[in-house]
Amino acid sequence: MAPLSVGVDLGGTNARAAVVDAESGAIVASHKEPVRDRSPEKVVQVIRQAVARAGEAARLPAGPAGRVGVGVAGQVLGSTGVVLNAPNLGWRDVPLGQLLGAALGAPVRIANDLSVAAWGEKRFGAARGLDHVVLVFVGSGVGGGLILGGKLHEGASGVAGEIGHVKVRPARPETQVRRCGCGQWGCLEAYTSGMNVAARVREEIAAGARTLVAERAGGDLSRVNASLVDEACRASDPYAVALWAEVSELLGTAIANLVTLLNPDRVILGGGVLLGAPRLSELVSQAFDEAVSRSALRGLTVERAALGDDAGVIGAALLD
Amino acid sequence: MAPLSVGVDLGGTNARAAVVDAESGAIVASHKEPVRDRSPEKVVQVIRQAVARAGEAARLPAGPAGRVGVGVAGQVLGSTGVVLNAPNLGWRDVPLGQLLGAALGAPVRIANDLSVAAWGEKRFGAARGLDHVVLVFVGSGVGGGLILGGKLHEGASGVAGEIGHVKVRPARPETQVRRCGCGQWGCLEAYTSGMNVAARVREEIAAGARTLVAERAGGDLSRVNASLVDEACRASDPYAVALWAEVSELLGTAIANLVTLLNPDRVILGGGVLLGAPRLSELVSQAFDEAVSRSALRGLTVERAALGDDAGVIGAALLD
Repeated sequence: MAPLSVGVDLGGTNARAAVVDAESGAIVASHKEPVRDRSPEKVVQVIRQAVARAGEAARLPAGPAGRVGVGVAGQVLGSTGVVLNAPNLGWRDVPLGQLLGAALGAPVRIANDLSVAAWGEKRFGAARGLDHVVLVFVGSGVGGGLILGGKLHEGASGVAGEIGHVKVRPARPETQVRRCGCGQWGCLEAYTSGMNVAARVREEIAAGARTLVAERAGGDLSRVNASLVDEACRASDPYAVALWAEVSELLGTAIANLVTLLNPDRVILGGGVLLGAPRLSELVSQAFDEAVSRSALRGLTVERAALGDDAGVIGAALLD
Repeated sequence: MAPLSVGVDLGGTNARAAVVDAESGAIVASHKEPVRDRSPEKVVQVIRQAVARAGEAARLPAGPAGRVGVGVAGQVLGSTGVVLNAPNLGWRDVPLGQLLGAALGAPVRIANDLSVAAWGEKRFGAARGLDHVVLVFVGSGVGGGLILGGKLHEGASGVAGEIGHVKVRPARPETQVRRCGCGQWGCLEAYTSGMNVAARVREEIAAGARTLVAERAGGDLSRVNASLVDEACRASDPYAVALWAEVSELLGTAIANLVTLLNPDRVILGGGVLLGAPRLSELVSQAFDEAVSRSALRGLTVERAALGDDAGVIGAALLD
């Protein structure tokens, strides 16, 4: 019988648990539980429920399982299991590893969601067989995961890969500098994540900017998102063209700088904004080509993430 | 008897060879030969001479030595021993590993000078005992070396750590964007290396800029350097104050972004500009503190390089 491992992907709206075949990377069974109350105690119960249901579906024997891996959308001190900051859950300094370990009666390993996604892609996806891979996701947030020397690189305390928080503007509360959800100013995420782009477009429309985006949203500003901006850009709307020029240059340059610093074999791109906005994606690619150092570009390949939403649970289940 | 290894530090003006005690990191003997003719064939002879003299001084038995490690100021494809680009030597695509291996009759391992310096600091200097360390040097050029997971990280082809070539301005030939020695536009090095800062100050004085730097140089513009700019800044010269504000923000932010991405235990700073310009160093530190992500800052230490010019030969001798 193949060795089975349990992985959990914890976001702001769901906890998904999966039983994973460690030899093939196949998901044997999985179960998703909604997160309604975001207090740490309730979330721990939700995870416990998801793990139990997935285990039942996979016909795992009851009783303490092996170690459970958990990927969390947020900054995580890997070694201690403390979640420093998870904006989607409204958490700061939550000792999730300890709470969940007690609830499950099993050892727990907590890591950042994009670190576990990178590890999933390394084991059974777009990074398979490669030693040095950087994964960059642009969705509601912006983040990354690093495979270096064939291993997951989480850094000294577990927060490596935070490309969303590199500074692309002066890191000060100056006019025109946007504040990030992390509390600092000038972060890449504040300019390029789906959530922040939508918020900025809403602000600017409210302040009088004229754009096709408003029209396409049918007057309902809550419908504004990156996909509508992309449509407007493809229709040559000047506002959208200018916005995408700025956003793509920031993203393309930041990814290029990461490649210049780390000289990976491959870049893996994912996330709803990058994958759901074709014009933006094209412009990011142009900005990347312009900015990346010529020497780091030799032999480099760029691919889309292969495992989709499964990367997280697979990577979490198979963490070392 | 302690195991002895041979390391070489190859720059634009000298090749220095050292015999290193692999157990203590002590330099048993070393010899420096001037590089006069920069053709690859002549440089190989110079290195061979330096290695032979250092070996004699250490009373090594004659005949083929063990492997010789060489650190080169430039971009090096580690695995193949090809030097892609070494501005100080005027080299492009020189197969140094092959040429030198044939001349020495011994295996040769080539790496970037700051990668070997980082490895020297890891083995016997300011990075000893730490798993994740980034080393940043600002001297005539700007570069870095990375220790990740306890190992030297050279990347897929050997060019990792090139912080001097991250882009800090649009990577295009636009007005006001400076071109880098590497041929691209907008690189950190083009704005912050000693050579580029001096060139810019000379240009701007020639174009009419009024600054104490010109006075301190006694009218001899060839004497302009980072140290004179630092003096002028400490004397509140408005030109120097504005220039150091720009340079320090670029350097501090780039180092902060590297830390945000990699979450190291320690940053090691070195190089003549950073160590020889106290006011600049102070301003870089302020800009770094402002820009680094709060989570990557926890537990981080910043130190000066401990081995000075010896880091290169020690690291080269002890490369894996």
